[in-house]
Parts: sequence; structure tokens; C-alpha cells
Amino acid sequence: MFVLVNLKTYPCDPVDVATAVRDVDEATDARLVVAPQAAHLERVAETGVETWAQHVDPIDYGSNTGHALAESLADAGADGTLINHSERRLKLADIDGAVEAAERAGLETVVCANNPEQIGAAAALGPDAVAVEPPELIGTGTPVSQADPEVVEDAVEAARNVDPDVSVLCGAGISTGDDVVAAGDLGAEGVLLASGVAKADDPRAALEDLVDPL
Amino acid sequence: MFVLVNLKTYPCDPVDVATAVRDVDEATDARLVVAPQAAHLERVAETGVETWAQHVDPIDYGSNTGHALAESLADAGADGTLINHSERRLKLADIDGAVEAAERAGLETVVCANNPEQIGAAAALGPDAVAVEPPELIGTGTPVSQADPEVVEDAVEAARNVDPDVSVLCGAGISTGDDVVAAGDLGAEGVLLASGVAKADDPRAALEDLVDPL
Amino acid sequence: MFVLVNLKTYPCDPVDVATAVRDVDEATDARLVVAPQAAHLERVAETGVETWAQHVDPIDYGSNTGHALAESLADAGADGTLINHSERRLKLADIDGAVEAAERAGLETVVCANNPEQIGAAAALGPDAVAVEPPELIGTGTPVSQADPEVVEDAVEAARNVDPDVSVLCGAGISTGDDVVAAGDLGAEGVLLASGVAKADDPRAALEDLVDPL
Amino acid sequence: MFVLVNLKTYPCDPVDVATAVRDVDEATDARLVVAPQAAHLERVAETGVETWAQHVDPIDYGSNTGHALAESLADAGADGTLINHSERRLKLADIDGAVEAAERAGLETVVCANNPEQIGAAAALGPDAVAVEPPELIGTGTPVSQADPEVVEDAVEAARNVDPDVSVLCGAGISTGDDVVAAGDLGAEGVLLASGVAKADDPRAALEDLVDPL
Repeated sequence: MFVLVNLKTYPCDPVDVATAVRDVDEATDARLVVAPQAAHLERVAETGVETWAQHVDPIDYGSNTGHALAESLADAGADGTLINHSERRLKLADIDGAVEAAERAGLETVVCANNPEQIGAAAALGPDAVAVEPPELIGTGTPVSQADPEVVEDAVEAARNVDPDVSVLCGAGISTGDDVVAAGDLGAEGVLLASGVAKADDPRAALEDLVDPL
Repeated sequence: MFVLVNLKTYPCDPVDVATAVRDVDEATDARLVVAPQAAHLERVAETGVETWAQHVDPIDYGSNTGHALAESLADAGADGTLINHSERRLKLADIDGAVEAAERAGLETVVCANNPEQIGAAAALGPDAVAVEPPELIGTGTPVSQADPEVVEDAVEAARNVDPDVSVLCGAGISTGDDVVAAGDLGAEGVLLASGVAKADDPRAALEDLVDPL
Repeated sequence: MFVLVNLKTYPCDPVDVATAVRDVDEATDARLVVAPQAAHLERVAETGVETWAQHVDPIDYGSNTGHALAESLADAGADGTLINHSERRLKLADIDGAVEAAERAGLETVVCANNPEQIGAAAALGPDAVAVEPPELIGTGTPVSQADPEVVEDAVEAARNVDPDVSVLCGAGISTGDDVVAAGDLGAEGVLLASGVAKADDPRAALEDLVDPL
Repeated sequence: MFVLVNLKTYPCDPVDVATAVRDVDEATDARLVVAPQAAHLERVAETGVETWAQHVDPIDYGSNTGHALAESLADAGADGTLINHSERRLKLADIDGAVEAAERAGLETVVCANNPEQIGAAAALGPDAVAVEPPELIGTGTPVSQADPEVVEDAVEAARNVDPDVSVLCGAGISTGDDVVAAGDLGAEGVLLASGVAKADDPRAALEDLVDPL
């Protein structure tokens, strides 16, 4: 399973969480990665953890003040990037351009979407993976795999119908190992997490619990 | 063939062009429709021409000052609507919501996109049709069917792969009957036009020339 | 007092409300206007009421599919337009361009903003008026003049400091004549209303109550 | 004079340019700062140069995937931030929120705008400084102080009229010391630079030439 810990703009110490993710990753078969803010990429990558960006812009080198260039994210240590997270939605043409920019810079891509129809659309743009996250469940603590298992199954089917090479992840409300196992049983190859780890009193313990049944 | 004449915000008289579209539609087997600005929908629809909106917002009745509600467009006479035109690009989630809003109000939908990948994505959202318009050819007078025939063929294949029930249109630079025939030969079931008719000295003559070989 | 009734995308009959606004306007010294959706401008203007648009885009004649051109709004019967309503917020440069476009087409302008600082900013762009509407009070039924009287006074002072020729309106939660009188006592020269009239069982009675103490 | 070197997303080595800015700053009375991409803030700040962000979002700690949090920019070494650069234009309410967020985190603020009217608007939001940059001159090599000196004088007057405590900078096309002196003569207290230094074959020499007449 692929497990991405999204630090959002939470008030956590990004290096502390990253170190925990790195250590737990080394002790399990799951692939754990962490996605800090752009300004924290470098110090997070220095821990040795697999580091992802939270967003990349559909741009090339040039006059783009205030934008996130794929090459600079990679240069700062990013191995992959989220695109179109529900807190950073993009225009269709810009998702397409962002996937292209990421691939140009050697970044792996996960395009997020809200429902199975949009997952099909995201898959058509050729990312490495798509992630379905019903916005109404984000941050609730109620896992999508339990609250709405059909949305995960339908997302897997929608992506497979468009491009069987695109992996499907799911997110929203996932915080325990059972949630991750349930996501896998529904066909997901990974999960997106955030508050369940990043806002936990003990992120390392939360991660250990999470990967325990895997 | 489906032929949509997009009036954009051109300085043409919308009723004059609409009347010409209506008359030529009655004299041909092609299906001709006209897409005026929202503020002109009512007077255009009164000519009896099939009338389309240029945009619809992903909203329902409520507190949405300055937005285009599908029900109000229909109420003013619209039978269908463009969505995500390259001059009015939307976020992926909003294209999805706009298609849903249009269907709720009984409006036919054409989702525009820039290239075959985005056409596949647009088709996954379940509109009635998709339209590929390479932005660099819009308004040039060089038809997409001639400048880049593969983009039309690839768009047809991308849409068919995702959902064979979604029709494919093409646009950008189309102004003559030969352009329309060429588009059809490449697999398109219709075309989007704008300046070639709306900015013509004699829109009726331009339309008659356009449908002549059909 | 200037009283603008914003119909948003409410499920009301725009002609019914417009007719009531027209009739009550004729029976009072206040200046009553109604702002329907773009697609309803023409039929509303035909009632003879003073008609405003809810939004105008910062564009000129040209290739602007899906946008609201000031000249077309005027052509459909608009005498003025809201700009930057909190449900249709614009970039600073686009507010500037929208004010310019509206003036070019002879439309009166009211730029909305959230707080006194932004009211000062809006006034600097030279509209005819600005309107302060704390977003958290919109649609609550609790009038801004009662919930936060200082925001109105501070907005009047902020606008006067920048440009004394710009009138100040206020909105959010206003539904009774007492609310309008209170707004005037705080220095506002008019009010923006919406649900209090447009969603009333009897819009005409709501308006008569509203203008009664003026 | 305040001189900000904006690295945009240029293919320069940010540490090389930052080191040159730091060294030239130490040898002159002018105040030189450099604005790298967010992902490069940390390594640039480590050179000891005064470091600025190119953009900050109007947010607080929380669920804001893919956004730039003021506290994180400061934490990575930023001392100040540009806001509303013409390549990253914001909604009026978001400029207001971004200024507030920056101040909360102790970042100095420069709000950019296109013309004197928008400069007045920007000044009303209470930043430390505003910067007028006519978009049509950005990257041209023709300095605003020469191409359109009145725009600088009018911007200074517009800001002073609204809030005399707000400094005025100017930008667009500035690359030589004479340009900077001319900007100062027109009332500007500083300049924004980009390609003239960041894309120079020898950034250090370009900077030395720039500050020579100061």
C-alpha cells in the first residue's frame, strides 16, 4: 500500500513528522511518503523520507512570480506531487498542464478528485495515480471506506475503464490500520492521510498503528 | 452535422445573426444553433432559432449573485449550453457540477477542451458532446481540420474510448463548407463556429456557403 | 435613500418582484431598483423598473465566450451594475477593469466589499458608490446596522477619506424600514437587500413596510 | 533605496544570485533583497541575504493543501513578501487577507498593482509599501521611469492621498542605475527588478552597476 501523509498547513513540526514517517516506512512493507508545504520541502527531504509536494503549477521556466515550478520542487527534494487536491482545485486545462510539468521534471503524480466521474476524467489525463476524496468526509474522522464504500469501488472501476495503468488511491477520514485495509479491500492501492497523523499527539504511534495490519 | 454559431461578445446584432441561422437551418439537413450572450438569450430565442447559452455555473437556486443558473437560462429560451469554452475555463469539479446543473434543467451540453487528453477527461463527465478546439487556432481562419487533422481524429478516439455515447465536435478556424466536410471526414459530428459567421459582412451568405456541401 | 433589491439566483418570479419594486418606487421618495440575473434583464427592464445587473466583466467587444459585456447589459436594459459582490469576488485589477467597462457603457456602478479597509480600496477605483456587506451577516436577517454599526460608520469614513464623491451603501441582513433608517443614521446613502424582499411571501408588502419610515 | 530582485521561476541558480545580492548589499547604502520561489526560500536565506517570498495566501494554520502560509514562509527565512504581483493577481478580499496574514507572521508587505488607481486601492489595505508595475512594460527592458514617468508620479500621489505612511516602489523594465535614480526622482522609494539581474550573464556586475549611482 501507498500511504501519503499530507501536512497541509497544519501547525505540526514538519521534520518531526517526516522523521516518524521515514522510520515507520523502513519497518514496514508499505510505502510511506510525506507532503509538506513548499517552503518546508528541503528540510523534510533532508530527513531521507520520500517527499512529495502538495501542488505544482502548469508552467515552465519563465515569468511566473508566486508559482510552483516542477523543476524547483524536484530540486528542493520532491519525488512526486499532489495535483488538484480539493483544497487547491484547478481548471481542467491546468490539471493537464500540471501533470505534464510534473512528468517533465521527473515527479510522480497523483491527481485528486471528488467522485467517480471526476476520477475517470483525471485518469484520462495520464497521471501515475488518481485519488478519490469526497470533500464532505475530509477531516471528519469517518473513513470513506466505511461511510461510502461504493465511491471507492466506483472510482476504481471508472479509472480502470479509462486507463488500467492508473492506480487508484482514496482519502478522507482515514486514520486507522483497519481503514487502510478496508480501502485495499475495495480496490484502492493506497491512501491519503492528513489530520489522523499530522495532528496526532504522537504521530509515530499513529503511523505504527496504521501500518500494523498491512 | 451540428453547427453551433458562437456570438461571443462580438459587436454583431444578435437577432440579425439568429434570424439568418434560423432561416438557413430550415433550408438544410444540418442542425444549426446560435449561442448569444446571456443578456441576449431571450430576444434570440424569440426568433425561433435553436438557442444555446455560452456558459452555465455549477449552482442551484440560492445565493449566487452574478452567476448563470441553468434553470434561468432555460427559462430565457436556452435549449443547450457550452461548458468550459477555452475563453471561460472551469475547474474540473465545476465542469462536473455544470454538466449536472444543465441536465437538471433540461439543457443539452457540449463540454469544450483543448486536446485529446482533455477530451477524454470531458467525456468521462457524461455530457451529450465534447468539442475539441486547439486554443492557438481559435480566430485564425485556419481550420483545425486542415492545420491539425490528427487532433480531431485523436479526440474522437479518446472520447470513444471513455464513452461511445458522447458525440465529438471540433472548432477553431472553421469558416467554409469544405472545413465542415473535412471535420466530418475526420469523425466529428459537428462544428463550433464564431467569427467566420458572426463577424461576416453577410452572415446569411456565410452560413449558406457553409452548409452548401452538406 | 437608494434601495437595491438583489434577486440573486432565487426561485422568485423576476417580473413579479420587479413590478412590485416599480410600483412602490413610484409611491415613495426613495429610489428603488432591482437586480435580476443577466438572462432576465430584458423582461425585467420591460416592466419599467430601474434595472441593474449583478455583475459585469472587465472586457471589451471581442472573443470573450461566457462573459458579461457592459454594452450588452445596457442594451438589455441595465442602468447600473453591482461589481465584486461577496458571492462574485473579483481580482483587484478586474474590479478596476469592470468599473471602467461599466462607465464606458453608461452603467452606474456599486462596488461591494467586506470591511472598511476594502471599502477604502474600492472607493479608490472611482465607482459611483461602494457597499459594505459583512459576509457573515448576509442572509441572516440580523441587520448590519444593528449587529455591527461601527462597520458602517467606519466604511463611510474610509470612503470619504479616499474620495468624498463616492456614496456609501450597506447591506447584509436588512429587511425592515427600521433597518434602512438605522443605516441612514450611520451615514449610508442606501442599502442592498435580497432575501428580505425576493423570498418574502408578499414582496410588495415587504417593500411597502421597508419604505414606510423613509 | 529599496531594491528587490525577483527571481520568478527563472532558470537561475538562486543561491548564486542571492550571494551576489548579499555582497553588493553590504557594499552600498541601498537595501537589497531577493525573492526566490517558496521551495528555495530556505537555501537562499541561509546565505544571509534579506529574503522575501513572492506570494502569501490569505490563510491561517489549517486545512489548506497547496497554499503558502505566512508563518511557514517566515519559518523558512522570509522577512517580507510580495502580494498581488501581476503574474499572481488576487481577489481584493484576498489581498486584504494576505496583508493581514503577513503582518500576523511578522513579514513586511509590498502589494503590487497595475496603475495609480489600483495603487490607491492597495494603499487603503495598509501594507508597508505598494509597487506600481505597468504590466505591458514587464520584461521589456524599457524602464517605467522612462516609458511612462507620469504613472510613477501619479502612483506616489494616489498612495499619499490614501495613506502617507505607505511607501511607493515601482517596477517593470528597470535594469540600470540610471533607471533607479530616475525612479527615485519621480518619488519612488525603491524598485522591483527581475530579468535585468536574474537573467544577466553576471548578476553581481549587473547589481554593482545598478547601485553605483545611488
